[in-house]
Amino acid sequence: MDGRNLIGFNYSAMAEEFMQAFSPALQRTIDGQFHVATPAEVDQALELATTAFVTYRQKSGADRARFLRAIAEHILKLGDDLIARAMKESGLPEKRLIGERGRTVNQLRLFADLIEEGSWVDARIDRAQPDRQPVPKSDIRRMLRPLGPVVVFTASNFPLAFSTAGGDTASALAAGCPVVIKAHESHLGTNALVALAIHNAALETGMPDGVFSSLNGSGPELGQQLVRHPAVKAIAFTGSLAAGKAIYAAAAQRLEPIPVFAEMGSVNPVFLLPEALHKRGVAIATQYAGSVTLGVGQFCTNPGLLIGIEGPDLDAFSAQLAEEMAKIPPATMLNEKVCEHFRTNKDRLLEQSGVSLLSEAPAESDKLSGEATVASVSGTDFLANAQLSEEVFGPLTLLVRCRDRVEFETIAQRMPGQLTATIMGETAELTHYDTMIEQLQQSVGRLIFNGVPTGVEVCAAMQHGGPFPATTDARFTSVGTDAIRRFARPVAFQDMPETLLPLELKNDNPLGIWRLLDGELTKP
Amino acid sequence: MDGRNLIGFNYSAMAEEFMQAFSPALQRTIDGQFHVATPAEVDQALELATTAFVTYRQKSGADRARFLRAIAEHILKLGDDLIARAMKESGLPEKRLIGERGRTVNQLRLFADLIEEGSWVDARIDRAQPDRQPVPKSDIRRMLRPLGPVVVFTASNFPLAFSTAGGDTASALAAGCPVVIKAHESHLGTNALVALAIHNAALETGMPDGVFSSLNGSGPELGQQLVRHPAVKAIAFTGSLAAGKAIYAAAAQRLEPIPVFAEMGSVNPVFLLPEALHKRGVAIATQYAGSVTLGVGQFCTNPGLLIGIEGPDLDAFSAQLAEEMAKIPPATMLNEKVCEHFRTNKDRLLEQSGVSLLSEAPAESDKLSGEATVASVSGTDFLANAQLSEEVFGPLTLLVRCRDRVEFETIAQRMPGQLTATIMGETAELTHYDTMIEQLQQSVGRLIFNGVPTGVEVCAAMQHGGPFPATTDARFTSVGTDAIRRFARPVAFQDMPETLLPLELKNDNPLGIWRLLDGELTKP
Repeated sequence: MDGRNLIGFNYSAMAEEFMQAFSPALQRTIDGQFHVATPAEVDQALELATTAFVTYRQKSGADRARFLRAIAEHILKLGDDLIARAMKESGLPEKRLIGERGRTVNQLRLFADLIEEGSWVDARIDRAQPDRQPVPKSDIRRMLRPLGPVVVFTASNFPLAFSTAGGDTASALAAGCPVVIKAHESHLGTNALVALAIHNAALETGMPDGVFSSLNGSGPELGQQLVRHPAVKAIAFTGSLAAGKAIYAAAAQRLEPIPVFAEMGSVNPVFLLPEALHKRGVAIATQYAGSVTLGVGQFCTNPGLLIGIEGPDLDAFSAQLAEEMAKIPPATMLNEKVCEHFRTNKDRLLEQSGVSLLSEAPAESDKLSGEATVASVSGTDFLANAQLSEEVFGPLTLLVRCRDRVEFETIAQRMPGQLTATIMGETAELTHYDTMIEQLQQSVGRLIFNGVPTGVEVCAAMQHGGPFPATTDARFTSVGTDAIRRFARPVAFQDMPETLLPLELKNDNPLGIWRLLDGELTKP
Repeated sequence: MDGRNLIGFNYSAMAEEFMQAFSPALQRTIDGQFHVATPAEVDQALELATTAFVTYRQKSGADRARFLRAIAEHILKLGDDLIARAMKESGLPEKRLIGERGRTVNQLRLFADLIEEGSWVDARIDRAQPDRQPVPKSDIRRMLRPLGPVVVFTASNFPLAFSTAGGDTASALAAGCPVVIKAHESHLGTNALVALAIHNAALETGMPDGVFSSLNGSGPELGQQLVRHPAVKAIAFTGSLAAGKAIYAAAAQRLEPIPVFAEMGSVNPVFLLPEALHKRGVAIATQYAGSVTLGVGQFCTNPGLLIGIEGPDLDAFSAQLAEEMAKIPPATMLNEKVCEHFRTNKDRLLEQSGVSLLSEAPAESDKLSGEATVASVSGTDFLANAQLSEEVFGPLTLLVRCRDRVEFETIAQRMPGQLTATIMGETAELTHYDTMIEQLQQSVGRLIFNGVPTGVEVCAAMQHGGPFPATTDARFTSVGTDAIRRFARPVAFQDMPETLLPLELKNDNPLGIWRLLDGELTKP
């Protein structure tokens, strides 16, 4: 584990300034000192990335796929050391981190399969019509090409799957973009280990120097330098609304606008329909006690808002939920800041007018732990106070008790942008709520029926992204194969001689990919 | 022709303030007074658009297609009146405007075909795997859904095809988004006529009140109000770099970030390779004299920069170009501002160090006309002065004479973002310039071989859009069927009961569209 910055194929430590690794479980600094990147090192990393881009963008999909698969192999080769380090730095349990490593490796392989197959470039060919009247038609062919160097801000809550070699890095590298990592302060050692794996994979598969760099530093300093650097062509970020907005604002001051994919806060509202509450309220309460507290509630898809209509069924649900939540033992949170914010935001929520505490697991104030908490509020008070729909990142949920169906549907209608919304309903009653269900689509990226929002499947149909403030660009997903589209743009070639055409666009389709040929999707 | 603002299905004139139509050929105001929209009218239009969106987004592709086709019909029904009015207001000749009307109508029908067929929604289905270990896989389905109300700034240089019912409006309406038009000051009457056609088509095909509105006012006032209005979900603009940057900056100050598709300036460089110059320099010069002066040079794809390597072939090309350009009679420009800017920018260009005038058609300083102008400069002077690669909107081109191939390729390498670049080269020599050709792709949206950049084919493979400063978002096109993607975002449905699923995602694929089913593209 090297504490220096990785700049292309070389380690660099220009500054004397260090950051120290910290264990939230032990509440003390642990081994490992990490050199803060200087502005000169930032420039170096981006200059190398720009140079590397020239070679890297011309690598075939098959070559880039080999690189991604090699990264997966080298991550696995790190073995228990990686899991042990990630446990120390994140406070997350072994089983979860082994699962997360699996997800990370699978994502890399999924993108490798995608680019090896090749149809993702959305190839389109409109052939010439030299005899067309009144003017001949030229031959026009188009495909997606990579944008250029991408900066990835790693996430505190997924030290592996949304970090150094996580979904953002995998999709950017798959698209053909070099990546510069802004390492997260709370898992610097984990980052260094995974960065080394990527470094080794790049060397092994003959990728250019600068295709990957990893820098240490703080968000306000290093982060801002990276966002404003003219060589950067896109930014991916997963984290808080405040940090996401700061990145977006800094990017807006650039001379050249670039895409900013910030995945930020979400309360992921859950709408409990009456029949479902009546028939299986107790089971739903138990299911949700688990979802709210999964990973100490530190998921962007954590269900922070449960909404139902007053009555005995909601009372029974509420009682069961409170009982289940009270049973859940407190667990270590990701870092000091996350824990401190959880406590502050929880206290602020509980102080709001009309909010009452339903249950709270026993506190461990001497530890960096998050206690499972459930509070409740009336629909009227909820609608009157926008603060109540703000995210409290941690194992907390707010039960909103609506006076009637009108209030229930009004809440759905006014919901600010979310990653997800969930509807718990019996099949027969769902059709009576079709207007509400249609309206909810406007506020979310993913609409879930009779499930929990936690657990984001990595697949072609996934949409992980929603209207602001959930993300800064609802038109793209950060999970699933379509995440690659964030880092590419179409380029058209008009009357380009066959010999010069990229393989994807040659007449005989040597890569055998799907193409839109004169308006028809075809494959050889 | 009604001079009031069209707000949904009603005309409104709250303000006493008028704008007056103006004829650039006659150089005087003409009939038609147009009420400036007040802030209250802006609010009304956006409130109606927001309400209309609820109904409009739920219309089928077939219903929206009927609306688009009816718009085309009603535009044609306006007959000669529309052409006569557009001629008066734009100074463009009859033949060009008849052609532009054809393009407008064809675009509407092209998008109608696209949404009637339906595969544009990029439907993806990943079916459930209830037995998967360690956790079951949910059923996840995804498709594109419309963003919401879109503001379209109409373009001065295409009073029909990039204006009221132009490509931006057609693609936004096709996607399912209501449109609010900011009418262009220089063709207010043309706008009013086309707005009426859209109004009639909306009534005839049962579209909701507010699906379309058209407002009169200035860019700095009305434009800024529209960009900052919280109900607006996307902006499309075609015009100058200065205006595009102002819109982008205003949008960046919004609480909610929204997509801004500004298509701005471009000099569309043309690289003249030695063999092509040698074999057919004279023919190329003639071809380019035509392209530079087509439509008085008032195209975003106008070739403003011709680049070659010093020598007798370039001398011959230069002489022929100068001769051809001198023959072209001056013609009326679009409006006073365009003419004034052309003269100012031309004079400023000619004052730059090393720039010399090669030929200028006879001036008509008493008219609002643009004189065909060609100037030349050395490659060294060009590389030393960034101003020389700025657009001069009008019938002007600058011939850059490079010392050698190195200088020639350096210019290609340093080219700022462009809509297009063109390479004039013999097939044999093109392979010797493969590095340059690959590099040029990084700066452009479309790379043309042995043609002219003017003339943008409306088809599936077209990419009209390029890196900044050509546009603010190179990932999207404003011409061709893919322009619809600007106004949509994916929404995923997890375990949604079959009865509730949109038609596009139902099991038996009732619309018969292409879908990505468990990773395989299929169609029934």
